[in-house]
Amino acid sequence: MSLLDALFGSAAVAKAFSDEARLQRMLDFEAALARAEARVGVVPEGATRAIEAECQVSKLDFAGIAHAAADAGNLAIPLVAQLTELVKRSDPEAARYVHWGATSQDVIDTGLMLQVRDALVPMMDRIDRLCELLAGLADRHRATPMVARTWLQHAVPTLFGFKVAGWLDAMHRHRMRFETIRAHGLTLQFGGAAGTLASLGDRGLAVAQALAGELQLGVPDLPWHAHRDRVAEIGTTLALCMGTLGKMARDIALQSQTELGELAEPAKAGGGGSSTMPHKRNSVNTALILANAERVPGLTATMLTAMQQEHERGMGNWHAEWETLPEIFCLVGGALERTMTVMDGLEVHADRMLENLQLTRGLIFAEAASMALASRIGKSEAHKIVEAASRKAVLEKIDLSDVLAEDPQVTAHLSPEDVERIFDSRSYRGEAERFIDRVLATHRTIFKVTATHPV
Amino acid sequence: MSLLDALFGSAAVAKAFSDEARLQRMLDFEAALARAEARVGVVPEGATRAIEAECQVSKLDFAGIAHAAADAGNLAIPLVAQLTELVKRSDPEAARYVHWGATSQDVIDTGLMLQVRDALVPMMDRIDRLCELLAGLADRHRATPMVARTWLQHAVPTLFGFKVAGWLDAMHRHRMRFETIRAHGLTLQFGGAAGTLASLGDRGLAVAQALAGELQLGVPDLPWHAHRDRVAEIGTTLALCMGTLGKMARDIALQSQTELGELAEPAKAGGGGSSTMPHKRNSVNTALILANAERVPGLTATMLTAMQQEHERGMGNWHAEWETLPEIFCLVGGALERTMTVMDGLEVHADRMLENLQLTRGLIFAEAASMALASRIGKSEAHKIVEAASRKAVLEKIDLSDVLAEDPQVTAHLSPEDVERIFDSRSYRGEAERFIDRVLATHRTIFKVTATHPV
Amino acid sequence: MSLLDALFGSAAVAKAFSDEARLQRMLDFEAALARAEARVGVVPEGATRAIEAECQVSKLDFAGIAHAAADAGNLAIPLVAQLTELVKRSDPEAARYVHWGATSQDVIDTGLMLQVRDALVPMMDRIDRLCELLAGLADRHRATPMVARTWLQHAVPTLFGFKVAGWLDAMHRHRMRFETIRAHGLTLQFGGAAGTLASLGDRGLAVAQALAGELQLGVPDLPWHAHRDRVAEIGTTLALCMGTLGKMARDIALQSQTELGELAEPAKAGGGGSSTMPHKRNSVNTALILANAERVPGLTATMLTAMQQEHERGMGNWHAEWETLPEIFCLVGGALERTMTVMDGLEVHADRMLENLQLTRGLIFAEAASMALASRIGKSEAHKIVEAASRKAVLEKIDLSDVLAEDPQVTAHLSPEDVERIFDSRSYRGEAERFIDRVLATHRTIFKVTATHPV
Amino acid sequence: MSLLDALFGSAAVAKAFSDEARLQRMLDFEAALARAEARVGVVPEGATRAIEAECQVSKLDFAGIAHAAADAGNLAIPLVAQLTELVKRSDPEAARYVHWGATSQDVIDTGLMLQVRDALVPMMDRIDRLCELLAGLADRHRATPMVARTWLQHAVPTLFGFKVAGWLDAMHRHRMRFETIRAHGLTLQFGGAAGTLASLGDRGLAVAQALAGELQLGVPDLPWHAHRDRVAEIGTTLALCMGTLGKMARDIALQSQTELGELAEPAKAGGGGSSTMPHKRNSVNTALILANAERVPGLTATMLTAMQQEHERGMGNWHAEWETLPEIFCLVGGALERTMTVMDGLEVHADRMLENLQLTRGLIFAEAASMALASRIGKSEAHKIVEAASRKAVLEKIDLSDVLAEDPQVTAHLSPEDVERIFDSRSYRGEAERFIDRVLATHRTIFKVTATHPV
Repeated sequence: MSLLDALFGSAAVAKAFSDEARLQRMLDFEAALARAEARVGVVPEGATRAIEAECQVSKLDFAGIAHAAADAGNLAIPLVAQLTELVKRSDPEAARYVHWGATSQDVIDTGLMLQVRDALVPMMDRIDRLCELLAGLADRHRATPMVARTWLQHAVPTLFGFKVAGWLDAMHRHRMRFETIRAHGLTLQFGGAAGTLASLGDRGLAVAQALAGELQLGVPDLPWHAHRDRVAEIGTTLALCMGTLGKMARDIALQSQTELGELAEPAKAGGGGSSTMPHKRNSVNTALILANAERVPGLTATMLTAMQQEHERGMGNWHAEWETLPEIFCLVGGALERTMTVMDGLEVHADRMLENLQLTRGLIFAEAASMALASRIGKSEAHKIVEAASRKAVLEKIDLSDVLAEDPQVTAHLSPEDVERIFDSRSYRGEAERFIDRVLATHRTIFKVTATHPV
Repeated sequence: MSLLDALFGSAAVAKAFSDEARLQRMLDFEAALARAEARVGVVPEGATRAIEAECQVSKLDFAGIAHAAADAGNLAIPLVAQLTELVKRSDPEAARYVHWGATSQDVIDTGLMLQVRDALVPMMDRIDRLCELLAGLADRHRATPMVARTWLQHAVPTLFGFKVAGWLDAMHRHRMRFETIRAHGLTLQFGGAAGTLASLGDRGLAVAQALAGELQLGVPDLPWHAHRDRVAEIGTTLALCMGTLGKMARDIALQSQTELGELAEPAKAGGGGSSTMPHKRNSVNTALILANAERVPGLTATMLTAMQQEHERGMGNWHAEWETLPEIFCLVGGALERTMTVMDGLEVHADRMLENLQLTRGLIFAEAASMALASRIGKSEAHKIVEAASRKAVLEKIDLSDVLAEDPQVTAHLSPEDVERIFDSRSYRGEAERFIDRVLATHRTIFKVTATHPV
Repeated sequence: MSLLDALFGSAAVAKAFSDEARLQRMLDFEAALARAEARVGVVPEGATRAIEAECQVSKLDFAGIAHAAADAGNLAIPLVAQLTELVKRSDPEAARYVHWGATSQDVIDTGLMLQVRDALVPMMDRIDRLCELLAGLADRHRATPMVARTWLQHAVPTLFGFKVAGWLDAMHRHRMRFETIRAHGLTLQFGGAAGTLASLGDRGLAVAQALAGELQLGVPDLPWHAHRDRVAEIGTTLALCMGTLGKMARDIALQSQTELGELAEPAKAGGGGSSTMPHKRNSVNTALILANAERVPGLTATMLTAMQQEHERGMGNWHAEWETLPEIFCLVGGALERTMTVMDGLEVHADRMLENLQLTRGLIFAEAASMALASRIGKSEAHKIVEAASRKAVLEKIDLSDVLAEDPQVTAHLSPEDVERIFDSRSYRGEAERFIDRVLATHRTIFKVTATHPV
Repeated sequence: MSLLDALFGSAAVAKAFSDEARLQRMLDFEAALARAEARVGVVPEGATRAIEAECQVSKLDFAGIAHAAADAGNLAIPLVAQLTELVKRSDPEAARYVHWGATSQDVIDTGLMLQVRDALVPMMDRIDRLCELLAGLADRHRATPMVARTWLQHAVPTLFGFKVAGWLDAMHRHRMRFETIRAHGLTLQFGGAAGTLASLGDRGLAVAQALAGELQLGVPDLPWHAHRDRVAEIGTTLALCMGTLGKMARDIALQSQTELGELAEPAKAGGGGSSTMPHKRNSVNTALILANAERVPGLTATMLTAMQQEHERGMGNWHAEWETLPEIFCLVGGALERTMTVMDGLEVHADRMLENLQLTRGLIFAEAASMALASRIGKSEAHKIVEAASRKAVLEKIDLSDVLAEDPQVTAHLSPEDVERIFDSRSYRGEAERFIDRVLATHRTIFKVTATHPV
């Protein structure tokens, strides 16, 4: 991995897409093919063992593959050639049966499916752990008051736990999407030269089924070489998750601004310093998540554009997927890991949240006041009165509650106690806590855990 | 609709996203909100009727909305203002309760969900009919031999029905994806100013549930104003379908080339002519499908990029969805309709398919010969012999079967009858028919139809 | 225009891409072609007048064009058919010469070039006026101190005029890019059926040159039907400008946050209100600019993807440009207009800027202190001392200057006066003013104006 | 480089963006900074030599940089730290002045500019050589008749040299765009913490100018940390070139189809074989160019989206460029090299081109016939007659010339000799040769060569 790949990506996910892993998963296909064909009786039992024995990536000559690939246009052709040579040395008879009946795309696509399955292990592990972190955070902050912001402006009061529950709610959906991919999206590719498996006579389907069994992959209704919706959907599923990680990172970046000071990435010695400004503590993890969020949509568009593959095998568009999907995986994986780092130890400055609530001298309760008034005189009228009062409070730099308490249009309908109640910082939370509870209940259902907090 | 919108889009789908439909669906939200709130006891029963009566798009002043929207930044604010005025005229008391407790985004997002549901009706209708057309085509051409092509080159023989079955197989998956959206992806948006429904006190959730019941939408665990994965997923689902439509169109475009002549769009008087070349018959439908396939991935990237919405309401990124998702819908809808036109009456020139099979003097059976030989002498050896024979056949412009019949390396293992059988145009189809059957069986399961063709 | 097109786009720019304008510009091509061919002697002089007389968009039957276009696949074929009919009525002989020697793409592409030229008029007008507004703003705020922020955190002091000069500097470059397009990027398309102009025998080039003269377009070395770099470059040029407009809008959105309060869109009665929160004043223009900034990159990717056009005329990819480039134009045009609105009357709260500078109790001068110390003891050492002092100032909530004034490592090298000077809010501006002057000098050179402010 | 990076990319271009090159170019900045600051008198002359001596990438500890970068969020901070340590060992006094007054982004962005300049050397070399190859090809085939195709259908006759001249014409424009970048697009980044160069007092601009002189980069009007149009424009310039390379590859892929057989990639032993089909010769280079053409637009959209950088330094969006621009470079570079390979030795089967011209029994001359007739009876009438004749020729499988020769509507106006002349394969070339000449003349002007072929 280059220095920048390491910076943005996930080492655990990248491992599934390394040269070694890619070639090994292709060799796994070849070994499983030999076993499956022996089982069905297409190749002699003896050949299988000789082939399997050589299906180890450590036996390959990488430089030779690199060199041959430049002319062959893919890694499968030189890999099969080397494997055949290796087998030939120990068992020339068995060498005849290497890659029997398969085409390059069979081994590349099925290899990809195995790599995706490998990569999903760390991905889902991280999603699960992130959900756990978020559930804890939502629960701990179920009563932490905070400013809700729309259009980057103060709107009404909310709870920090409510915001976190929103993050968690989205992650629950992503978890389900990934689960669907893992359960239903991983499918054998095996069709021979052009999908008909003609080279296997009337035993093609039997081999396909045995092979899928060996590799624990689904058997498709028919081979899908030039139909890439399954592969592109893996990309879009990852991209949707990236969108949510980007949204969380944006929220944290904004709430970490010097003037807001509500959140901060966990402090780490040496992390986030500036090369020139001694006082800086940059939100490094957040920034790198945002970087990945900028990059994934364009890569996903490539996956979608590449779907228009010609005839029985795409020319160029298939090849366009090879680096693009792994790149999406690594970027989303890297963002997941950095989001975990951020959430696990996120500094939540409840005091600053409260200060910010009080920053606008009661304007944050303008809607509360308007609604209280509206129930007496109607929404439009109330809106206008509170709008005017808000303007006055801003211009004269006084508290909105004071303006309202002196406005006869208001006092005719609301008592001083009513007004006081409206501007109480514990008030006007609506259903926020019940919404948090709903999300946490779903969380417990998904993860089959029992409540640690009485809800 | 502009002339170009009409050219590329689907009128039926566009209707769901017209100004009229958009505003009416927003009014439907307002009417349902009044009913739901009356049911829960938040607003007086009487107000509901007065509000409902005015929730008709024909009563709105569009020019006024356009003018006010430029400053308001969305259509909801002027719409609510006009609606309130309309209600006020007939029932000033009821006017107090218009839009009670809701925010602009509630009406816009929920309105969008209703529009999506409307648009899914023609979309799914067209998908179903397209599947039907493809199933018929696959069945009719289950024995039509054709060249399979990889990298735009002749590969091995296949059946046209097998290719069509591949198209159908992908459409089955898209149908299921749309079905999932329709069943689970359409969700109420209702959270008030910032998601907490504070303006409704402790009755927010009850109103939300009643409102969802009125509109027949799902109730989310919590409001999702700034979490756009549901909306973006509608976009990616459409984009995946577009990819397959583009792939089919590309296949047809290529097989319609003058030199191939295997397929042609159904002829229509006046269609596809050139302004200058009298002999031309352009594949107009196919070209326009391909155009849409080029456009949708970029639009989908926008949907994904727009997911990073700030805090409790996005600033700009939410707005970026407003025209983008409808545009994706219209382009995919237009492509679906044109694909139906193409498939319903597709000219299949089986004679040209057969001619093309024979075009290379037997080279198309090179793999068949190689496999036959391989079972005797191993794959690599066989591959080399047939590769050399193929080169000779090309250079000397003679039939591959003749070259092989004279090659002692071949005749030592294959009899003249063996060779003849290899080069029989009905041979070497492998599992193609069984794959067709598998897809058609799935088709019958999905559509609950019984076989019309004995399989 | 739909309500949403009107919201996001520019009416002036959209006008150049309306149905009427598109068809009129195609008719202008046909009229100019007749004139050019008469001049070269290819068609009789008399035919020209009859053709020209009918080249008025008001004479066309739009519904008929819409209907015929659906089958023809473009607007040129029905337009030419209607024009021919119109001419035939007045001069059957002249009707023979309508569209003589041209192909559909000639009229569509050249029409596009004329539309682009039309659209560039309001675009460049707005760019010029925006530059003027920015130059004024930079000049007025050349001494307004403000916090510079990196990674959304306070960094060091800067001047608001310096930030504006940075915006202006980028707009200067965009202006030059547009100027280059206008001067060199608008080129005649005229090649007949496949670029050879064969239908005009040996007079094709002469007609091309006369036609280019009529339309005031460049004559390319050869027709460029399937080479779209000129058209795609118009798209990328617009997209680059959109990126800068998005950057400015992002800055303003962030500085308008409640907690920062440094900037605000000009107030307008009724603008930016919330449907539910009486105190809100949303930055509507800024949000809509940001929306357009999200949308343009995906559309630009479409323009780039569409470049791979087949043979002598693209199939689908050419068509993909037709709505995409106008959409980019309208979105960038709309963003330009809204940016002008924002800049013309931008509320600059210099008091809040100053307050924010002082918000961190001197931390903003940490680098200044570090550099002062560094000149005595080296950069690393100084960085460490000030870093520790900064941490202490934050933890103990005291001024950094006080921490430093008591630190013997500091007082050994800096006098109390030195320290005081470092923390003076007018200090540590470096070259900011000279950079402003450089940009304003360039501005005056470009716009050939003399300085209004002594620099 | 990974196996796949090597497959798709250019080794020569990738070298400019390797870890080593990236770090070395950053060190070059640091060395030049020390020299420049000594020149201006900001740092002592002696420090320069000590710093310069350590600015060698071989002295860096890469693993250490990788480890520290994960927390620092960029490579500059650990690089500067290591460099400072290295200098300290030999000259503790000099170590104080490492990176003096600069910020991380200064070294990263300026380093990028140097890398771009390095990468432009092989890029422009390849563009020049490709132009040369294309000029030769256009010239050699200035009289090779071929079918022009629109919408993938036969249109009219053309010359292969004319098509190649179209490719060359586009490459001329790309060459000029790259030239512009090289001459005007490479600019120093040097602004210190937030662009004001405050840490250098009143000598910042002087240092900037000296530093730009050292590095031979342009001096911008003001630092451009958060204004990325220059960087994004490098991306769009590359993307435009990629579009043309993709278009050429698409043409060649299509003309290489088995049924067309007009072109073929140069044969190479072992190249383009299939793992299962002995007769296949895949167009490997063409496919890989097409793959890159699919990938670059999405990456370019990322560059454009990333332009909205916050305040004085972007958070995440700046980082999104770091891998994206190099990836674009490598993909375009790889495509350029493979295009050269294809063009240098492209098999042009003039015989097949001629056969294809004759394939449609004269339909290719339908426009020629129509135009000949049109000059007598008008275009519409002629079009209709030839359209009907074409249909008849197709249906009855006879030559169009025979149909026309028997049609009294035709024979009334055209003599048998006229008809014969129309259907002569050497006829109806229009201005094709003159267009070739125009492009070759431009070529000679650009490359200052004299004609090798009499034109």
